[in-house]
Amino acid sequence: MNTREKALALHKEWKGKIETTSKCSVKTSEDLALAYTPGVAEPCKEIFANQDEVYNYTLKGNTVAVISDGSAVLGLGNIGPHAAMPVMEGKCVLFKEFAGVNAFPICLDTQDTEEIIQAVKLLAPTFGGINLEDIAAPRCFEIENALKETLDIPVFHDDQHGTAIVVLAGVINALKLVNKNEKDCKVVVNGAGSAGIAIAKLLLLYGVKNIIMCDKEGILRPDAPWLNWAQKEMANITNNNNEEGDLTKALENADIFVGVSAPNILTKEMVQTMSKDPIIFAMANPVPEIMPDVAKAAGAKVVGTGRSDFPNQVNNVLAFPGIFKGALESHATQITEDMKLAAAKAIAKLISADQLNEDNIIPEAFDSRVVDAVANAVKSLV
Amino acid sequence: MNTREKALALHKEWKGKIETTSKCSVKTSEDLALAYTPGVAEPCKEIFANQDEVYNYTLKGNTVAVISDGSAVLGLGNIGPHAAMPVMEGKCVLFKEFAGVNAFPICLDTQDTEEIIQAVKLLAPTFGGINLEDIAAPRCFEIENALKETLDIPVFHDDQHGTAIVVLAGVINALKLVNKNEKDCKVVVNGAGSAGIAIAKLLLLYGVKNIIMCDKEGILRPDAPWLNWAQKEMANITNNNNEEGDLTKALENADIFVGVSAPNILTKEMVQTMSKDPIIFAMANPVPEIMPDVAKAAGAKVVGTGRSDFPNQVNNVLAFPGIFKGALESHATQITEDMKLAAAKAIAKLISADQLNEDNIIPEAFDSRVVDAVANAVKSLV
Repeated sequence: MNTREKALALHKEWKGKIETTSKCSVKTSEDLALAYTPGVAEPCKEIFANQDEVYNYTLKGNTVAVISDGSAVLGLGNIGPHAAMPVMEGKCVLFKEFAGVNAFPICLDTQDTEEIIQAVKLLAPTFGGINLEDIAAPRCFEIENALKETLDIPVFHDDQHGTAIVVLAGVINALKLVNKNEKDCKVVVNGAGSAGIAIAKLLLLYGVKNIIMCDKEGILRPDAPWLNWAQKEMANITNNNNEEGDLTKALENADIFVGVSAPNILTKEMVQTMSKDPIIFAMANPVPEIMPDVAKAAGAKVVGTGRSDFPNQVNNVLAFPGIFKGALESHATQITEDMKLAAAKAIAKLISADQLNEDNIIPEAFDSRVVDAVANAVKSLV
Repeated sequence: MNTREKALALHKEWKGKIETTSKCSVKTSEDLALAYTPGVAEPCKEIFANQDEVYNYTLKGNTVAVISDGSAVLGLGNIGPHAAMPVMEGKCVLFKEFAGVNAFPICLDTQDTEEIIQAVKLLAPTFGGINLEDIAAPRCFEIENALKETLDIPVFHDDQHGTAIVVLAGVINALKLVNKNEKDCKVVVNGAGSAGIAIAKLLLLYGVKNIIMCDKEGILRPDAPWLNWAQKEMANITNNNNEEGDLTKALENADIFVGVSAPNILTKEMVQTMSKDPIIFAMANPVPEIMPDVAKAAGAKVVGTGRSDFPNQVNNVLAFPGIFKGALESHATQITEDMKLAAAKAIAKLISADQLNEDNIIPEAFDSRVVDAVANAVKSLV
């Protein structure tokens, strides 16, 4: 069986990659009288008297909603809420297996920004955190911002921030290898969607001064007519030298390429115009913007991709389980920018100086130290 | 420790009576490639091509949302969504333990009818069925009706229909004991809220001709100024002889009393004015409308309550697990009135003629035959 056949057979067998399981026995009338009526009235009364008790008596404190409208699922695009379910269930599996956090998929039957915001607000009481997933840009920014303002539980759009955190971790370690300082680097981020914009913002926050964002139409500039509002915002805070043109132009003398765009759009000629010791993150999936061997042959010093079969995999699973574990355990009400920076630094730090090399800048997905390193970084800032 | 202390200690230990559990292992990159990217794209594509495949590849087909706004929780009243969580989690435990059905609590941060309807519509894609719980009347009727019209999955308000089904099962067997026919009986239903109204409707459907409903203000009559719209509807289809007055008046010559009202409001004098061999369902919780020994001393032939420490417990757990098991397994899009009748008859039938006596008209909560009997009754009508 090939991967397609195996994946279909397994999904058919599972009929749901997660299930809800009872933590209490209900075999006798006494069991029932404690877990259900009349005993259950007691924790209800405690919570009614003091709402914070909901964290002591229910699953809220260790449970995340994985919420999608199915509008930007993997590389599949706008496939809708039902077809998005296998991905959201998969995410829930990762939450539980990597961080011990309960997670439940909620796929919404709307792609209207206001309706999504309203639905998430209304269902929030059950959950200790909201993980937004695979929602198209720029809608995802409005939704995340609105929810962060209203809700008293952490809201995190993983496609943006999970990716950004792991990319930053990789950048931190790659810069050590090429002996450059982030302040002096020219970084090109190609793909001005949710992930690209979040990556650029986090790199700016980390201290990178010169970022150029590109999209299909070329370099983001404030006067470009094709920008959506989120891209316009980025055009205003990037591209300090007001460069014009396409990706090829942007890459001249660039130190770092970060691609969250499309297969094979980065050529070896483009890599050759970059600054000395280029760093390449080519994260289009499953086919990257440039294959690692091609990039290396063209002079790239460090290459990361989204794939597990190449070195330096940028995998969100390094970030979101620990982010939520830390946030939930410390009752954080927000995932702040400082927490994201701290998480990236904590991930980077797990690669010690003697282990650091061009094929080892990011810990592996199954490195069991990661989740607590990230969780502790988050908790230290609550 | 008393029950209160035990219940609190256990709930604190559980911190959530249910959890989400992974059904697939993710220990290796290959595991990850099948349960998550890139393999997960395959079931996504199948579902995108044919939406019905969501039942083959995800948890939808065996998962119920337990939804409440916290407005009418147990006997505690309007305690809100957080305080309602322990009850909803308990319900989820029962779904899984009694019927093998996954269930997840969703407590909504609104008590506005339209907002509740909208929220449930939007989150429906994840679920194979919607169990509404502890939502105040008459809002619960509007919500259930609106959702039944819009959604293509079964919607069931357990406080109404679960109770009604089990009461009808009890009535069917009690009538055998007193040798009466439902068509000739006068039935008084006291308490014109969600349960009372649903019980009266199901009894009418079963064939009872003469039902009188009462509430605090007295007998429901079409011209009573205190009726809400749902009570007015009931006033129009009950009380054929246009009786006036209070519960005492209503009970004269009644054959059956069904109480979903308040402690100790049924006196022995009132029972004595009833017809020969009165049948009493006194389901106020934890203190019934009349204690069984008092009712018996006053002449009652059969007495049922909501309590497990008296005979003939009317317990919804006899109905909702099997109802949803049957509906989910057969992909029913509605729980129809005929299914409710069939479920009640199936429950009644489990008490064979030689076992039937005044202390044994309803199977016990842990009778393992019940869930499949009810599920099969539902499935036979899909």
